[in-house]
Amino acid sequence: MVSVQNRQSAYSNATFNWRQRFSTVARRTLPPEINWLMAQALEDPDIISLAAGFVDQESLPHEEFAGLLREVMEQAQNGRAALQYGTTQGDLEFRIKLIDRLRREQVISSNSEIDASHCLVGSGSQQILYLAAEALLDEEDIVLLEAPTYFVVLGVFKSRGAQTIGIDTDEHGLIPERLEECLEQLKREKRLSRVKMLYLMSYATNPLGVTLPQERRRQILSILQRYRDGGFPILLVEDAAYRRLVIDGECPHPIKRFDDSNQQILYTESFSKSLSPGLRLGFGVGPKELIDKMIDIKGNHDFGSSNMAQQIIKTVMQSGLFDQHLKTLQSIYRRKRDIALNVLEKYFPPEAKWLRPSGGFYTWVVLPEAVDTSAKGHFFQTALQEKVLYVPGDLCYSSDRPESKRSSAMRLSYGMIGEQALQEGYKRLARAMEKEISTLTA
Amino acid sequence: MVSVQNRQSAYSNATFNWRQRFSTVARRTLPPEINWLMAQALEDPDIISLAAGFVDQESLPHEEFAGLLREVMEQAQNGRAALQYGTTQGDLEFRIKLIDRLRREQVISSNSEIDASHCLVGSGSQQILYLAAEALLDEEDIVLLEAPTYFVVLGVFKSRGAQTIGIDTDEHGLIPERLEECLEQLKREKRLSRVKMLYLMSYATNPLGVTLPQERRRQILSILQRYRDGGFPILLVEDAAYRRLVIDGECPHPIKRFDDSNQQILYTESFSKSLSPGLRLGFGVGPKELIDKMIDIKGNHDFGSSNMAQQIIKTVMQSGLFDQHLKTLQSIYRRKRDIALNVLEKYFPPEAKWLRPSGGFYTWVVLPEAVDTSAKGHFFQTALQEKVLYVPGDLCYSSDRPESKRSSAMRLSYGMIGEQALQEGYKRLARAMEKEISTLTA
Repeated sequence: MVSVQNRQSAYSNATFNWRQRFSTVARRTLPPEINWLMAQALEDPDIISLAAGFVDQESLPHEEFAGLLREVMEQAQNGRAALQYGTTQGDLEFRIKLIDRLRREQVISSNSEIDASHCLVGSGSQQILYLAAEALLDEEDIVLLEAPTYFVVLGVFKSRGAQTIGIDTDEHGLIPERLEECLEQLKREKRLSRVKMLYLMSYATNPLGVTLPQERRRQILSILQRYRDGGFPILLVEDAAYRRLVIDGECPHPIKRFDDSNQQILYTESFSKSLSPGLRLGFGVGPKELIDKMIDIKGNHDFGSSNMAQQIIKTVMQSGLFDQHLKTLQSIYRRKRDIALNVLEKYFPPEAKWLRPSGGFYTWVVLPEAVDTSAKGHFFQTALQEKVLYVPGDLCYSSDRPESKRSSAMRLSYGMIGEQALQEGYKRLARAMEKEISTLTA
Repeated sequence: MVSVQNRQSAYSNATFNWRQRFSTVARRTLPPEINWLMAQALEDPDIISLAAGFVDQESLPHEEFAGLLREVMEQAQNGRAALQYGTTQGDLEFRIKLIDRLRREQVISSNSEIDASHCLVGSGSQQILYLAAEALLDEEDIVLLEAPTYFVVLGVFKSRGAQTIGIDTDEHGLIPERLEECLEQLKREKRLSRVKMLYLMSYATNPLGVTLPQERRRQILSILQRYRDGGFPILLVEDAAYRRLVIDGECPHPIKRFDDSNQQILYTESFSKSLSPGLRLGFGVGPKELIDKMIDIKGNHDFGSSNMAQQIIKTVMQSGLFDQHLKTLQSIYRRKRDIALNVLEKYFPPEAKWLRPSGGFYTWVVLPEAVDTSAKGHFFQTALQEKVLYVPGDLCYSSDRPESKRSSAMRLSYGMIGEQALQEGYKRLARAMEKEISTLTA
């Protein structure tokens, strides 16, 4: 006992500074600011958080799962398969079923030769995005993306040392002409070969909530094909996380539908929004060479995602529960969306502008330019005093954009919270806005 | 339809070479040779594979899980929590229970201040190893490890650009004097500051099957403390994946037990070997600064491992099933180990040497020096003709070691296969050896 204590005091004298030992990747990886936001919400249980991108709590199909899991586990063969190692790429039968389904849904065209070998199962589509970034990006490489974009992905690209360039969007999503201008500019600067990918959400984007129209899809693909300068292809990473939660208008084909040769697009989807984030499963479909390399990298990460989760989702899809659940989700989120729009109309000051979400569960609200919505700004404190939390717009912009320094927008999520809290949260925010605007005009 | 076909033919003319777009990390990441081995086994169902590190198939507790899962899922609160997002670090209650258990088991000392904040849940301990490598290693950094070592980890370090140095082992595991000599040499070469970690298995090592004796544990820790040159600490990554499967003699305290200040050691454990690989869960306990950075990186990877898997293991631990299952596993693997040793004694030629596994499920067999066991060698083909597969010893050595070019050893796993196949597989290998040795002496 004495010797243990001696050892401890010898230790206490030593200063271990692990920070000085960190790798370049580690130094580039910063805790997402959203963590700080979440901590604020947790500290005060009275705060209504419109910040978290969590899914509707009541919708999570725990009872249906109880039955299905019993079904999977009671049978010796399936049960043991679920509990044993799988392959790094993902369960073959699961991938075959996924590809069959994507073909039926015309996500991939019937005349493409895409099969299960082009599909990689990951721990959420987030892991697919990380693996693609790790496979392709070196320092000084360039990634194009929407402005504003899904903020978590900005941290991924930054950690790989890549430069991100935000392309203008409007109420229909990414503006193809602006993409072309950007590529033309990069060509003039002889930097075109450094452009490794365009990261694009094609359905109910986060944070704008818009679904890219059919015409723009073709334009964007055609632009990327034209700028394949010197044989350097630009990968289109099509993130379709919210495709199954589109509730307004027609749901256009994914851009992947037009990539018959499977050479240009890495298409990703997640089961987090459409079924359950707790299972942590998503997948990617893309060029064989790229998928194969991502499998090798994933082999080093974790040898493959949970086999049990894959067996569960396979069963959920077979049983018909998946399709039934999607209908339930669409009706839940449509109702919440309509409530949100209603409260916006009724309570928000006329100076506030917003887009009508085509699906998903975010509203993007833009305040008068004089209002700075950043976490360091005055308005954020006013909102906190009213006990409501939002995601400041500046976080959703790539660092090359002026909006990343100062934005008057905010992302409001109605994903997780109930209808009452949703109404109350929006009303609190309306009060904060009125206070802020009256201060500005005073 | 015509336009789609036109687009396709335009595509066919283009050559997309994604390989030329790969990142440095991607170029350094090669498909593990074990994949090729596994493919061999799959091609011919008559082959008995002693190569795979899978766990005992019959032991997987699918029936018990059926009941427990119903329990977790039927209850609204637990069921929904399992299906919702968790935190990146891992479920707080789960981490608290893990740390409590580790303290009871004296993995961490009762007077250390280690708590749940020092624990990170990962997708297998493999992910913890990857995150540690990603957090600490840059090109030209040095990792020390056992020779032979767990071969998958060699690929991880290589992909980060690090140089690995293999330290001699004997029948008790890593030889402390050799570690010291290596560090002294690196000091002379002024490369000590590049040594970022020592990766070490402390229980029933893969592939040797040996458990490091208590005395060596203290020596190794003390050596690392002495060589903390110029304030650059060397992280000890203590991989205790097989701790709960030690069946012989006393099971000594982990080295982590003596790291009261929690500054020197990242301790990792996996639920793959002790419960179910299909859940893909493991954890690490280490210095706060390092764990925090690994959490940030994991936030980019996947926002946290499956919450459902965490809820399941929490329930399994609470229910007592975990401890009960460990006893079952120990008796299964003891029985298999004894069968393996028996067949080795009875059938293997006197020229073959092996170690008695203290646990886990590997035997390390060394043939006469004249036999080259590599996948390209003659003996491997002879074994394939006898329809038996093993892991060639050269794969288990760091590239700085001569054994990585030529080895006469092999790793035989009795993890997954049944007792009959185990006996038959070893007998086939004995026949292959006899053939080979008679060829050599002819």
